[in-house]
Amino acid sequence: MHTATITSQEIQAKIDFKTKPLGALGQLEKLAFRIASVQDTLSPRLTNPHIIVFAASHGIASEGVSAYPSEVTPQMVLNFIGGGAAINVFTEQHGIKLLLVDAGVDHDFGKNEKLIDAKVNFGTKSFVRQSAMTDAECRQCLEKGAELVREVRETGCNVIGFGEMGIGNTSSASSVMSKLLDIPVAECVGKGTGLDDAQLSRKIAVLTSALEHHQQTGNDPVSVLAAMGGFEIAMMCGAMLEAARLGMLVLVDGFIASVSYLAAFKMDASIRTHAVFCHQSNEKGHRLLLQSLEADALLKLDMRLGEGTGCALAYPLLQSAVAFLNEMASFESAGVSQKAEN
Amino acid sequence: MHTATITSQEIQAKIDFKTKPLGALGQLEKLAFRIASVQDTLSPRLTNPHIIVFAASHGIASEGVSAYPSEVTPQMVLNFIGGGAAINVFTEQHGIKLLLVDAGVDHDFGKNEKLIDAKVNFGTKSFVRQSAMTDAECRQCLEKGAELVREVRETGCNVIGFGEMGIGNTSSASSVMSKLLDIPVAECVGKGTGLDDAQLSRKIAVLTSALEHHQQTGNDPVSVLAAMGGFEIAMMCGAMLEAARLGMLVLVDGFIASVSYLAAFKMDASIRTHAVFCHQSNEKGHRLLLQSLEADALLKLDMRLGEGTGCALAYPLLQSAVAFLNEMASFESAGVSQKAEN
Repeated sequence: MHTATITSQEIQAKIDFKTKPLGALGQLEKLAFRIASVQDTLSPRLTNPHIIVFAASHGIASEGVSAYPSEVTPQMVLNFIGGGAAINVFTEQHGIKLLLVDAGVDHDFGKNEKLIDAKVNFGTKSFVRQSAMTDAECRQCLEKGAELVREVRETGCNVIGFGEMGIGNTSSASSVMSKLLDIPVAECVGKGTGLDDAQLSRKIAVLTSALEHHQQTGNDPVSVLAAMGGFEIAMMCGAMLEAARLGMLVLVDGFIASVSYLAAFKMDASIRTHAVFCHQSNEKGHRLLLQSLEADALLKLDMRLGEGTGCALAYPLLQSAVAFLNEMASFESAGVSQKAEN
Repeated sequence: MHTATITSQEIQAKIDFKTKPLGALGQLEKLAFRIASVQDTLSPRLTNPHIIVFAASHGIASEGVSAYPSEVTPQMVLNFIGGGAAINVFTEQHGIKLLLVDAGVDHDFGKNEKLIDAKVNFGTKSFVRQSAMTDAECRQCLEKGAELVREVRETGCNVIGFGEMGIGNTSSASSVMSKLLDIPVAECVGKGTGLDDAQLSRKIAVLTSALEHHQQTGNDPVSVLAAMGGFEIAMMCGAMLEAARLGMLVLVDGFIASVSYLAAFKMDASIRTHAVFCHQSNEKGHRLLLQSLEADALLKLDMRLGEGTGCALAYPLLQSAVAFLNEMASFESAGVSQKAEN
């Protein structure tokens, strides 16, 4: 860690002397404070923003835990490549560079210049009675995620968001959350992409059984990710850690990305100062997770899509935070009277 | 009202066939539906967006109900003109045209090409023991607001937001809300721009006394606005009504703007289909008001600034709603499998 040259007091003073009542820009002020702190400057800039979407297939999807068939994962990757998904539209709207990563999809995409091949395997194994991946595969994910972020950093990017696609990955994420936070998995699940009550009961039963099988697994993040994680979840975790280490702002998307963040946080709590939580989804587990992380998301739009869409939609708010800090007049410069002293 | 040529079913079908789980874009889907409905097309566009900020002075400010002195109102108008306020920064960021209107500030600005002179009077009277304005002045506000919107409409604008500036106007807005909804004024107030507990008690006492004085005033919106409103509140009300009549999307900002909307809604409930609530502020009264209007705001950023800042910050979400509806692939066009039938 380098030593900060700008103090918290200096940042707060710059915010407080803007022509508005104290605190009147609410969360935007906290965001401006965070960005200035991370960049160690009173005049922060957001440069060359990126979102990386990691895709992977999940063995657990064969257990009837998802409303959609597994083949939707490679189909959606092709949709990302074709530019037709929500994340394509929203990154295009905001001038965010989108990178697509095959972290472990059960499909051979061949060579494609729009898809980064980081395939660890053709999907995880169903973690009901075995580990989703080996410890070596998990470490490979973490390292590959970090490597990708280093490459992005070299383009001058200082703000990066992460998204995911993988049918079955709410099951994986809920299980990892349950194990890492020692909370019953029933508290960590939601209806995912659209389960009915009977399907939700089945999902909880399957995951409860899986967590019993993995009861002897260690509580360290690598062991938990290997036991019940997904390739995209683990790779996102490594990517987030490296982004924070490199001094970048880390945009955390929805539920799955928040679980990757949780694992990253357990590995290195200093990531906290670099994280911006972008969207609180409707998944019950997500509310609980953000509470336990003492995190407040910028947007609460009842979305449950992933793909990094929350990061893309929240990005203009980061730009607004930077803009008000750099461009608004101060009471003094504008000749506006301040609040009367009591 | 012209007859719609596009049915609700057609709009919903276009939303549902996009490559995402049903409803997964949450509030953004409702927003896309609303925009398509208002514009009566499956391919809506947002054109030449505007935000009008109405400023006015309030006699009630002399009663010790605000943390800031009255002279801040003209000072902030000059700050808007100079481009240094939050709303300047955010409208500039999103390419929104900003119009500034002197609805009744207690200051002579002279001629200024950046300020529209719609001054009804040099501030309202303190409404504790008299009417804030005459009925004629109130009607003049409503008409002037409508006239301004007609001029904006002629530039090709189809989406318009409204903001306000006026020290003391939360007192006016809370009183109007209390009277129109028949709710005790103590439920309708908040700490405004930053009162402490003692000051808040005084504000409630002053307004309770004012409402007692106006007990015999009729419950119709014009009478209530004349009795306890502000020039900017009444002008915004007239502007919102006209914007909806002209088929524009009406962006409702924070607490004060929501009270203008409430008065407009009481005059013509059909405004509802055109309104987009942009920000739910921290003011207790605002939460209650939006509940009573069955409205859910896009952003909840704990802001309490007004000026139309909520409209400006929410605008990219409207653009996102339009973008996904127009640009996302459908399951069919992308070759993605749909949810398995149960």
